[in-house]
Amino acid sequence: MAEGTDSNRALLIDLDGVVYQAGQPIDGAVAAIDWMRRRQIPHLFVTNTTSRSRGALLQKFERLGFAAETDEIITPITAAAGWLAQRGLGRAALYLPREAQSDFAPIEAIEIDSDAPVDAVVIGDLGEAWNFDLLNNAFRRLMREPQPQLLALGMTRYWRGPRGLQLDVAPFVKALEHAAGCEAVVVGKPARGFFEAALEQLDCPAAHTLMIGDDIRGDIDAAQQCGIRGIQVRTGKFREADLGGEIVPAAVLDSLADLPAWWDAQA
Amino acid sequence: MAEGTDSNRALLIDLDGVVYQAGQPIDGAVAAIDWMRRRQIPHLFVTNTTSRSRGALLQKFERLGFAAETDEIITPITAAAGWLAQRGLGRAALYLPREAQSDFAPIEAIEIDSDAPVDAVVIGDLGEAWNFDLLNNAFRRLMREPQPQLLALGMTRYWRGPRGLQLDVAPFVKALEHAAGCEAVVVGKPARGFFEAALEQLDCPAAHTLMIGDDIRGDIDAAQQCGIRGIQVRTGKFREADLGGEIVPAAVLDSLADLPAWWDAQA
Repeated sequence: MAEGTDSNRALLIDLDGVVYQAGQPIDGAVAAIDWMRRRQIPHLFVTNTTSRSRGALLQKFERLGFAAETDEIITPITAAAGWLAQRGLGRAALYLPREAQSDFAPIEAIEIDSDAPVDAVVIGDLGEAWNFDLLNNAFRRLMREPQPQLLALGMTRYWRGPRGLQLDVAPFVKALEHAAGCEAVVVGKPARGFFEAALEQLDCPAAHTLMIGDDIRGDIDAAQQCGIRGIQVRTGKFREADLGGEIVPAAVLDSLADLPAWWDAQA
Repeated sequence: MAEGTDSNRALLIDLDGVVYQAGQPIDGAVAAIDWMRRRQIPHLFVTNTTSRSRGALLQKFERLGFAAETDEIITPITAAAGWLAQRGLGRAALYLPREAQSDFAPIEAIEIDSDAPVDAVVIGDLGEAWNFDLLNNAFRRLMREPQPQLLALGMTRYWRGPRGLQLDVAPFVKALEHAAGCEAVVVGKPARGFFEAALEQLDCPAAHTLMIGDDIRGDIDAAQQCGIRGIQVRTGKFREADLGGEIVPAAVLDSLADLPAWWDAQA
């Protein structure tokens, strides 16, 4: 790049709704990722996905036609495991699919239906597996004395699934916070610490980093609160009603496919 | 009563956790209600129960050994039906047990799994029938344009069921408010209008009325916000941790059985 055109240096890229949707890559997304690699643009995939492990995410990438390394993917699960371990909270009730629990080692996952006391109640994306008994089970754990720590694996409100909009983690966390009279620690988007950890790993200042996402709040607003410019794509959960409010993205692209042309036009 | 002892004139009585619990009357509660009737103390049963109709509640009373008239019972259901009818919101998706929907006439109950547009999404106590699909169905309705009105049948956080603490209406409403970015109109406790309607029906000023409940927030605090003194009972969902905070009841009784002696001691 020519001098003075280095304002955009690094990329944070959301996955679901940006790179793929309903199990299929978004048109042109794989080509855009190839472009990013050829240009050697520092990047991280920053996702709130907690329904599968990073290993399973890599397998999904491969099936969709692109490659990545484990350490290019930041999810709330590894951040949460670190957060718990640092505080000596070794026993956690994990409300997330068993497949995703492997990333939680060395935290001891307490069986949900056991009566054993826990240090933390961790809420991930159980999706359609949520039912009254599971939510009530988490609630009852939070009503014990001493109250375990409630940990939210991101605060995504909803996503676009194959059959339409689907509730994500945040509504269930809000339900538990209100019922048990406590406040969750959020590990994942939109928590500032999650973006700061990403910037540190990228080794790039916020002002030179872009966050590309489909979530006007969890991606765009949250990144911009940290000084990272947000690029809204019109794919995934995007709805026109998302624009025109208080949150103004740095740019709005029809999809990730438009990123290379936009990036070069900025330069 | 002697002159100058008329400070306590009327009673608002919560049902679940105060009069009965887990399908059984609380020891001495039936005798206390008999006492209240003999003394001809103006009273109303003020409940957030939305799992059954008022008719079914009366049958339950009879089974437990006491009698009441339909118009002695105030529930959020009849209040909500009136609220909707006044505003011409004639089509509602009712998330409450079918048995309780009869009190909603003349509002047209839209089948939950139909695709028909609705004017309002009404959240009652579905209890163990809640699952992901039902909550997501309510969420998707709230994401339509124009957004239907979200109506909460009370904002009780939890109650004590036969197997322990159970989530009530409020956590599910909080989940939907957060996911869909809207605010519910609350009909039932702790809404001020609900208590005001009760006072009007009693035809007694707030300062001379007592609210007896097991919910430090939904009964005691909410009543006291309206100038009604709150009497906390140590039955139902009561936990010692409920006391010692910012909310100070006018009195704390071991149970409803202690009401007659307490009332007379006040006189």
